[in-house]
Amino acid sequence: MTLNELFQQIKKKKSFLCVGLDVDIHKLPSALSPNPSSIFEFSKQIIDAVAPYSVAIKPNLAFFEVYGSQGWGLLEKLMDYINVQYPELFTIADAKRGDIGTSSEKYAQAFFKHLKFNAVTVSPYMGQDSVEPFLMYPDKHVILLSLTSNPGSQDFQIQSDNEKNLFERVIQKSQNWSYSEKLWYVVGATQSFHLKQIRQLVPHSYLLVPGIGAQGGHLSEVVEYGFNEQCGLIVNASRSIIYSSKGVDFAHAAAKRARSLQFEMEGFLKKYELIE
Amino acid sequence: MTLNELFQQIKKKKSFLCVGLDVDIHKLPSALSPNPSSIFEFSKQIIDAVAPYSVAIKPNLAFFEVYGSQGWGLLEKLMDYINVQYPELFTIADAKRGDIGTSSEKYAQAFFKHLKFNAVTVSPYMGQDSVEPFLMYPDKHVILLSLTSNPGSQDFQIQSDNEKNLFERVIQKSQNWSYSEKLWYVVGATQSFHLKQIRQLVPHSYLLVPGIGAQGGHLSEVVEYGFNEQCGLIVNASRSIIYSSKGVDFAHAAAKRARSLQFEMEGFLKKYELIE
Repeated sequence: MTLNELFQQIKKKKSFLCVGLDVDIHKLPSALSPNPSSIFEFSKQIIDAVAPYSVAIKPNLAFFEVYGSQGWGLLEKLMDYINVQYPELFTIADAKRGDIGTSSEKYAQAFFKHLKFNAVTVSPYMGQDSVEPFLMYPDKHVILLSLTSNPGSQDFQIQSDNEKNLFERVIQKSQNWSYSEKLWYVVGATQSFHLKQIRQLVPHSYLLVPGIGAQGGHLSEVVEYGFNEQCGLIVNASRSIIYSSKGVDFAHAAAKRARSLQFEMEGFLKKYELIE
Repeated sequence: MTLNELFQQIKKKKSFLCVGLDVDIHKLPSALSPNPSSIFEFSKQIIDAVAPYSVAIKPNLAFFEVYGSQGWGLLEKLMDYINVQYPELFTIADAKRGDIGTSSEKYAQAFFKHLKFNAVTVSPYMGQDSVEPFLMYPDKHVILLSLTSNPGSQDFQIQSDNEKNLFERVIQKSQNWSYSEKLWYVVGATQSFHLKQIRQLVPHSYLLVPGIGAQGGHLSEVVEYGFNEQCGLIVNASRSIIYSSKGVDFAHAAAKRARSLQFEMEGFLKKYELIE
């Protein structure tokens, strides 16, 4: 999917919402049995429910991988379902991979060719040759960790005793790599203080913003500092949507929560004149 | 496996060699058909051949994951084989994972409980709460990326215009985390200039050293700067061992190459009086 096609979806659905699938079998609705195979059924019902209000879906690899080949099989089944039923949804593998070139080539194949994701999250720690193999795929996108939403983001990403923070170096250096137009950046919603600065560094790049909801970030600040002329933001909510209810109404409750976020987003898209 | 048990193995086998399984089906010996299922057969024969000369085995996740659930199934089969046949081998999942706490918990379960690895490589980019869930497992080990062997290590890990390099910060900060006695560090064999300094920062920690052989690092420099009183080094070779021959003698050729490295290692262990 191209960025222009994504922007068309944003305007059509009046939403820049991504729903994160961090499916923990111990948090499933009581109607579903707490075993791995319920992950597919739960995810399918959540996607069916939130699809009208969201433009992106982000399965979290950790929650599949914990069940080994069985978990990976469930992810394959889920990606087949999404790609057939909802080809308009932008799919993000939240995998945070990154290794020397020959290994990153294999990871890129796994997520772009085998699972047919539109994008994958990648860790920048190992530098240019660890990221470039992901950038070789036409119309695929690479979302580089930059300034994350967790407490540990303070440990290395922000370095108060240096002139330049690591997250700034990551953004600036990576913009000089081949095919850097395919790069997005992860910027936590809890980091709005730095978001303005990041938007100045990469005025045209899309940003994936986690941390709304359960982690405490505020949408109003995110859009104030993060919007660009093509929206430029995909805001993720995971637990606050998918675990809206433990009852039989779980899919309905998730839809309601997604719709409420979509409604809020529609207001901001209008306010900033990105839609009429 | 405890560090003491590992050191006993090192003394018994007179070797601190790790064999990396980066099994690319396009590089298999002509006798094996180039399809994913050959990965198990090839790996099994390589392990049988090199086990007398090596103390550790390091499957590279990327090379399994590229085949999705099928690849993960092959890794499960391989780990069952190693854990039953060679319980004395120290097993390292070269996975380079790392995510917010709730996700890292799942990754830790995947590698330590489901696949029963002794250790896993982890990326430090997201900080303390992304690494600590891996440190909660008794007698398991967490190998943090510090200064890697690839060209991209120059991009962020080494920052010439700052007082302190990122890899030093990673080592120093992580030493203050809970259960830091379980932390190892990845230090590329191509980085011997910095190895001496790293050994001063963490005199007692084990270091995983890739980059011998195909990537150009020298064993003599690695041991000179890296040895400690418990050896403290596991040196990895992957391609230079496992692809020693394309012929029917591939396992024999791998054994010969591993034996030659073991012989060199035995010399250094004696020279530095770690064995008699």
